[in-house]
Amino acid sequence: MTAKSQKSNLTLIERLKQFANQSANMLNLDVEMAVSMSQPIKAAVMIIGGGEDKVQDRKILRAFVENSGGASSRIAIIPSASREPEIIGRIYHQIFTELRAEHIEVFDIRERLDQTPEEVEAQLAGITGVFMTGGDQLRLCALIAETPLAIAIREKTQKGKLVLAGTSAGAAVMGYQMIAGGGSGDSPNKEMVSMSIGLGIIPNIIVDQHFHNRNRMARLMTAIAAHPDKIGVGIDEDTVAIFEQDHMMRVMGRGTVTIVDPAEVSYSNQLWVSDTAPLTIHNLRVHILSAGSKYNLAKRSPLSPTI
Amino acid sequence: MTAKSQKSNLTLIERLKQFANQSANMLNLDVEMAVSMSQPIKAAVMIIGGGEDKVQDRKILRAFVENSGGASSRIAIIPSASREPEIIGRIYHQIFTELRAEHIEVFDIRERLDQTPEEVEAQLAGITGVFMTGGDQLRLCALIAETPLAIAIREKTQKGKLVLAGTSAGAAVMGYQMIAGGGSGDSPNKEMVSMSIGLGIIPNIIVDQHFHNRNRMARLMTAIAAHPDKIGVGIDEDTVAIFEQDHMMRVMGRGTVTIVDPAEVSYSNQLWVSDTAPLTIHNLRVHILSAGSKYNLAKRSPLSPTI
Repeated sequence: MTAKSQKSNLTLIERLKQFANQSANMLNLDVEMAVSMSQPIKAAVMIIGGGEDKVQDRKILRAFVENSGGASSRIAIIPSASREPEIIGRIYHQIFTELRAEHIEVFDIRERLDQTPEEVEAQLAGITGVFMTGGDQLRLCALIAETPLAIAIREKTQKGKLVLAGTSAGAAVMGYQMIAGGGSGDSPNKEMVSMSIGLGIIPNIIVDQHFHNRNRMARLMTAIAAHPDKIGVGIDEDTVAIFEQDHMMRVMGRGTVTIVDPAEVSYSNQLWVSDTAPLTIHNLRVHILSAGSKYNLAKRSPLSPTI
Repeated sequence: MTAKSQKSNLTLIERLKQFANQSANMLNLDVEMAVSMSQPIKAAVMIIGGGEDKVQDRKILRAFVENSGGASSRIAIIPSASREPEIIGRIYHQIFTELRAEHIEVFDIRERLDQTPEEVEAQLAGITGVFMTGGDQLRLCALIAETPLAIAIREKTQKGKLVLAGTSAGAAVMGYQMIAGGGSGDSPNKEMVSMSIGLGIIPNIIVDQHFHNRNRMARLMTAIAAHPDKIGVGIDEDTVAIFEQDHMMRVMGRGTVTIVDPAEVSYSNQLWVSDTAPLTIHNLRVHILSAGSKYNLAKRSPLSPTI
């Protein structure tokens, strides 16, 4: 890292802090009072659509710290999706410090590590929450997918011993099938989306992020047409889909979570048309879910708010 | 119209013609051989998503002339959606001439006309096909909606005595509820779409055009959330949804027609949330239909190609 980029990085953090303090003052709040009480870990996978509020209420990041144990949370940040892991790691370190996590460290992984199970166990000892930043999901998977560390994080998360959050690229990797890239502004066609393999935290979903913000409905439908055994989960910016242990997903934040469910698809031309030909897909079921909504992933069914 | 704009207009038509001739030569075709045989009118409402091919195969415009009677078709062009009705009228006049319509005239309506039923009957006498161009759907409706002419066109179309086609703005007006404008790139919310009243040709649909090209899925879903008694029909560019007398819709062209069917919607917060709040909608049914697909509007059901 050059001296110049270190300086601009510090400046960015200072400006973020100033903005946070100003915002808090305006709201007659005290940032330093934003203490989460020490509380038991509430295991969850928190899939954030990118662009989460980092300077004002920080509702989603605060919920991550609270789920991870509040004042007794012990957070690991994995900034490896980013080309600027040091900068982005430091930004989230600062935020989680202000949110009063007990312990924060950055796993600044820049090459695939061949750790022993014992080394991984020692590295994760006491960690209650892992946060994966944005960047490039292919980069993140190239660095950690199926390494001993990623396998251990997956196992601990699936056993309810860890809160795992990811935003943007860190969200994209949550399924087994992963959207690596794609486009918009065209009739749905196979060239619109490129797929790869993610971390398989929740294997039966395909995540898309910055969802309505970047007009990604067509690409998620295209991805789902190719993988009709999965459920599409499109998450808007500053919005989180929180998957808990009971197969329930609930929505928090400013936008929506869109479910694209192919369970009833009765016909699709996906298998035999060319990559650029328009797709035909009959009977997709779509739910648009805003804050407070719940969805049962096992039953493939949204819960009516009156229930 | 200034001499300059007349000149550039002629130049445009000349260039369109040259391009058409060149394309035809390349394909070893003869534009002048593009004669539709005289044939009986095949009544239909042809809703074109804008940007239809005007210079190469002209498949959609050719189908319009053929449905209107081919070599015995008598076409009226309504260019009133456009701010340049003379230019756009002349372009389509030229195209339909090359496609060998028997008779073509332009209804260059620039103010609301208070015609008698007899005057309208005389104006439409012998007309087998009416084509509404692109432009601004609010302008088109302000000029013709519920005038004696528009009422007569609607009646003749619904009785199967007329082929009515509209592209872009001319497509938007086909429903009773009409999308007048809106945005994209945001979580679905009521401010994303502004509604108005169309010509009511097919009253129970809400049309959106340039559909996937301009990422309009969220706005169509928002429109449908506000009007759950309607069916959303989103039509891509160079694509047409052809509604025939038996409640069948079929798709022709380069892109897709997207059906958004709210028949099974079990919950929506549309009625009580603010205009900027994100929507919740449970159980939308979506069909993506490419060329050759059929959809039964009465049964709300796509036809499997194997049937």
